[in-house]
Amino acid sequence: MNEQVMQAIAQADLAIRNEDFDRLMEFYTDDAVLVVRPGMLARGKEEIRKAFVAIARYFSNSLVPTQGRQVMLQAGDTVLVLSQTLLSADKEPVGGESMDRRATYVFHREKGKWLCAVDNSYGTTLLDEPAD
Amino acid sequence: MNEQVMQAIAQADLAIRNEDFDRLMEFYTDDAVLVVRPGMLARGKEEIRKAFVAIARYFSNSLVPTQGRQVMLQAGDTVLVLSQTLLSADKEPVGGESMDRRATYVFHREKGKWLCAVDNSYGTTLLDEPAD
Repeated sequence: MNEQVMQAIAQADLAIRNEDFDRLMEFYTDDAVLVVRPGMLARGKEEIRKAFVAIARYFSNSLVPTQGRQVMLQAGDTVLVLSQTLLSADKEPVGGESMDRRATYVFHREKGKWLCAVDNSYGTTLLDEPAD
Repeated sequence: MNEQVMQAIAQADLAIRNEDFDRLMEFYTDDAVLVVRPGMLARGKEEIRKAFVAIARYFSNSLVPTQGRQVMLQAGDTVLVLSQTLLSADKEPVGGESMDRRATYVFHREKGKWLCAVDNSYGTTLLDEPAD
């Protein structure tokens, strides 16, 4: 496990919980891509920031992401993170329920700092056939 | 979809089928990591080459990998590939059956060429609890 990447993910989760989107953007590369939902991507910090503001509103400002089991595969300055991501929210639409996802993140080391280049909380479920 | 990455994966699959391991190694970064099986990694070209030789022997030199549905998430010089990978082999232990996996690969562009940095054909199943 790469401790620096683990810390970055934990701090980013805290920034989401606190809705501190300026802080959250510090964890992404300039050309990062976020899977907002299957078929919808946000590219670059401006789009990603807007997406997180919309996601917070969607979850009535009560979203709490936490990471469960993690596996990291590092090759030099690149790390693929597989992570059990738990999303809970006090209010609708989750309504006290939690969502368990298997996320895939790619982190890249730039000037000594590990930053998220690909943020895909949907993992390999993006390969599911699209519903008609 | 990144056409160059798609071509690299197809050509690497062909090299595996032909057991042309010198050719196969051209598709990896120097510090690449391969998940040989859950809990067992090969790091760098020398270890990865040895692993593929052992895998070919395990499948009685009849292994045929092909890719099905693919999703690619690109951020600058980094691409996360999600791929439905079909492994078939004429002989034991697969014995005419095929194995369907959801793989996760990370490709990185170095000097204009896309190379595989992380080769994990097990995808997020690495998060499964280890069997006792």
